[in-house]
Amino acid sequence: MNHSDDGLNKQRVRSDLSSVSGGVRDRPEARSGAPAGTTAQSRSAVFAELGELLGDRAGDSRPLREHHGKDESYFPNALPDAVVFPESTEEVKAIVDICRRHRTPLIAFGAGTSLEGHVLAVKGGVCVDMTRMNRLLEVNAEDLDCTVQAGVTRKQLNEEIKHTGLFFPIDPGADATLGGMAATRASGTNAVRYGTMRENVLSLKVVLADGRVIRTSRRSRKSAAGYDLTRLFVGSEGTLGIITEVSVRLYPVPEAISAAVCSFRDIGGAVDTVIQTLQSGIPIARSEALCATTMRAINVHSKMNQRELPTLFLEFHGSAASVEEQARMVQEIAHEHGGLDFEWTARTEDRNRLWAARHNAYFACLQLRPGARAVSTDVCVPISRLTECMLATVADITAASMPVPMFGHVGDGNFHLVILVDPHHPADMDEAKALNNRLVERALAMGGTCTGEHGIGMGKIGSLRKEAGEAYAVMCELKQMFDPQSIMNPGKVVALP
Amino acid sequence: MNHSDDGLNKQRVRSDLSSVSGGVRDRPEARSGAPAGTTAQSRSAVFAELGELLGDRAGDSRPLREHHGKDESYFPNALPDAVVFPESTEEVKAIVDICRRHRTPLIAFGAGTSLEGHVLAVKGGVCVDMTRMNRLLEVNAEDLDCTVQAGVTRKQLNEEIKHTGLFFPIDPGADATLGGMAATRASGTNAVRYGTMRENVLSLKVVLADGRVIRTSRRSRKSAAGYDLTRLFVGSEGTLGIITEVSVRLYPVPEAISAAVCSFRDIGGAVDTVIQTLQSGIPIARSEALCATTMRAINVHSKMNQRELPTLFLEFHGSAASVEEQARMVQEIAHEHGGLDFEWTARTEDRNRLWAARHNAYFACLQLRPGARAVSTDVCVPISRLTECMLATVADITAASMPVPMFGHVGDGNFHLVILVDPHHPADMDEAKALNNRLVERALAMGGTCTGEHGIGMGKIGSLRKEAGEAYAVMCELKQMFDPQSIMNPGKVVALP
Repeated sequence: MNHSDDGLNKQRVRSDLSSVSGGVRDRPEARSGAPAGTTAQSRSAVFAELGELLGDRAGDSRPLREHHGKDESYFPNALPDAVVFPESTEEVKAIVDICRRHRTPLIAFGAGTSLEGHVLAVKGGVCVDMTRMNRLLEVNAEDLDCTVQAGVTRKQLNEEIKHTGLFFPIDPGADATLGGMAATRASGTNAVRYGTMRENVLSLKVVLADGRVIRTSRRSRKSAAGYDLTRLFVGSEGTLGIITEVSVRLYPVPEAISAAVCSFRDIGGAVDTVIQTLQSGIPIARSEALCATTMRAINVHSKMNQRELPTLFLEFHGSAASVEEQARMVQEIAHEHGGLDFEWTARTEDRNRLWAARHNAYFACLQLRPGARAVSTDVCVPISRLTECMLATVADITAASMPVPMFGHVGDGNFHLVILVDPHHPADMDEAKALNNRLVERALAMGGTCTGEHGIGMGKIGSLRKEAGEAYAVMCELKQMFDPQSIMNPGKVVALP
Repeated sequence: MNHSDDGLNKQRVRSDLSSVSGGVRDRPEARSGAPAGTTAQSRSAVFAELGELLGDRAGDSRPLREHHGKDESYFPNALPDAVVFPESTEEVKAIVDICRRHRTPLIAFGAGTSLEGHVLAVKGGVCVDMTRMNRLLEVNAEDLDCTVQAGVTRKQLNEEIKHTGLFFPIDPGADATLGGMAATRASGTNAVRYGTMRENVLSLKVVLADGRVIRTSRRSRKSAAGYDLTRLFVGSEGTLGIITEVSVRLYPVPEAISAAVCSFRDIGGAVDTVIQTLQSGIPIARSEALCATTMRAINVHSKMNQRELPTLFLEFHGSAASVEEQARMVQEIAHEHGGLDFEWTARTEDRNRLWAARHNAYFACLQLRPGARAVSTDVCVPISRLTECMLATVADITAASMPVPMFGHVGDGNFHLVILVDPHHPADMDEAKALNNRLVERALAMGGTCTGEHGIGMGKIGSLRKEAGEAYAVMCELKQMFDPQSIMNPGKVVALP
């Protein structure tokens, strides 16, 4: 599967594509020894055309290809044959037209932070790096929405709209691009209050495999006009078309924000606290559960002094009176469910410290086993099954040979394991895969999904097939309808012959 | 287009299908004079098979067909050739299998309250009345969700889950079925707080045109697993498959609910009040604007004594303290925008009276012109354009020869006209259509959509084509992929040759 191990991959494009944006230079010697043949000739032709279109915004140096041939998953690198940097939808369309004529794969690339191999060029082809499409096109403060080019990152967006008093809430941790977040149906810590990309994308501009450019819907808040193409592309992982513009909902920055921490003897108390909170209609903005191992890692990494027990991190948004009322109500609920203490703070610096620790949990956990690499997993179950699912997983973790911190977004029923493997120890990877498979099977058996927010990529195609049953075949048919040549990020989401 | 005018329609099925549920009896004499020919033979064969499958739950009496050959739109009736009453997904699948073999259209039918001709049997065929599929299958109070058969109505659902302290908020006015609401992507007065069917359907069971039965997703709160088939069927109006089960989100009944009424000299003040309310992050649950004409109709119909000026009806959900705080904040905002008075009430009976008046606005308006029939229109624009759109529409209304009340869901940018036409006066209908067309053109020019919640049906296919541009062709391709024989509610959403 890993194209970078493929002999064909060694052949290079002609030298007029040699200069590369970002200061990376092509090394002509790398092109020596290109095998002859139709494929090689066709590939050269593709790159010649791309060079003509984009000049030095098309490149194929090894460092450039290596940078675009990996993500944050545990899969081996798979390098594209070239990388292009379009600046407009029209350029993306022209790139797609070139690649289609030559049946060359296209892989849209944002921040490269996906976790299931989404951007790996497993069939070679052209990586379409969207990061130069980084302009805000429209901010409609009265409508609480904006339209941006797909390469705008969430932090950039929030920085550039700060003056409006609005913010974009979806926060998957990484500073991902809006296009990438739409393509993976991303969510994160505050989906319990604000929803995921599914609920927050109003409209997309997409270049289809056949070169048509569509706007999937208007940006009005509601519409009952025709089939929901917007949602069809949200979560399609670049396999049905390339997203070039994204319109999203924005929200007023809350008048007041407060946070709380509460530890529990067992994870069940934490989950039950959140269930009762949601059933009471208290609009919590964040509800994160962290296991004792994660708390230990965080204490070391962020120099904190929290109890090393299952712990809830909470956040409340609203008016000053409302956030205080919410916190008081949740404190009572936590107390009923064995909450050991309940530290509440409305101070911005305390709150930032807390969430920085949560966001750094991944890196903190990595330090539990120096030199380790993380296999990051992701399932989501109905919240009524969450305690059972987490406890069964704890039994697996206890039996594991490596540290496996567990944390997640309780309010959504979504949690992660960070399986710390020694990259030089193949048995570790086998164990991690087995642990991951058992977790997915368990989630599916409980009516859950194999991924709450990481997506399918190349890592979970088998799981999707099990989860979706007959619907998997329908997904394959959709892929074939939109992309009959299978040039759009092939080998992801669905496995076609 | 109207199949009831078609000679072929007069032919009837064989007599073992004669008995009809609901006490309606078949009249054998209606079958006399059936024209010979392949089509007639094929039709007889279909109905013979349906009768074998369903016994007296398949029927074709004229009253039964008439009941299922109309909706609440202004289109002429179009009767199906037969009506069936399945009680399970398996029966729906068997019905689809029979119809597919004979290339006979299928029209799913819920409460018959659609407004754009969705359920009219414009190509004849079999009406699949879902109202016997009216069982709640699962209520998961801890997960705040439930799964119901598609024929369950929203009022039935809320009645049957009352004991859980939860409710289903989507309220399109009519007591529609959940299947019908999913199929039309319905919303209503409290979408501004709770979203539409798009945001609230978790999963669907669907029978496809080829007889496959799929579950579109798991009921977990989030999922990033594969293409979003759920959202593809939400709003598909029975044209891609027949929805047989619906899983939806539920919400805690708020601890406190309060309501307010405020009138304004002009509609702009009302809209600006809502915009600023939303920008301030005040989580209003309902924000309805009614024009002076509507207020006059309501005063008469509901024996109220409100000012006959543009008026906002508001509702607040939350804790007792929070609803009071929200109302106070909105009162201040309304005052800044010329609100003339602001009557606030936390008394249930006052609130119910207010919303009963709002829900009866349609019927109240009908009485403005005795004997009139309503052409009910629906557009949705970005809220920043709402005042402009409404004021331009007021100019149209002023020039109209009939009364045209206007009201809508301001927080969503969605509003309706009720054009009161004399059904015996063809010029009225022409005028109504012209008014409707101008309204849609205006909404599209402002970045809006031709329908916020009524759907496309057969009434807005041309508008959808204008709105979607290139994306309309993609919708046609989706229809062809899912329904290559065009047997699923043909003639709706997209026009295929």
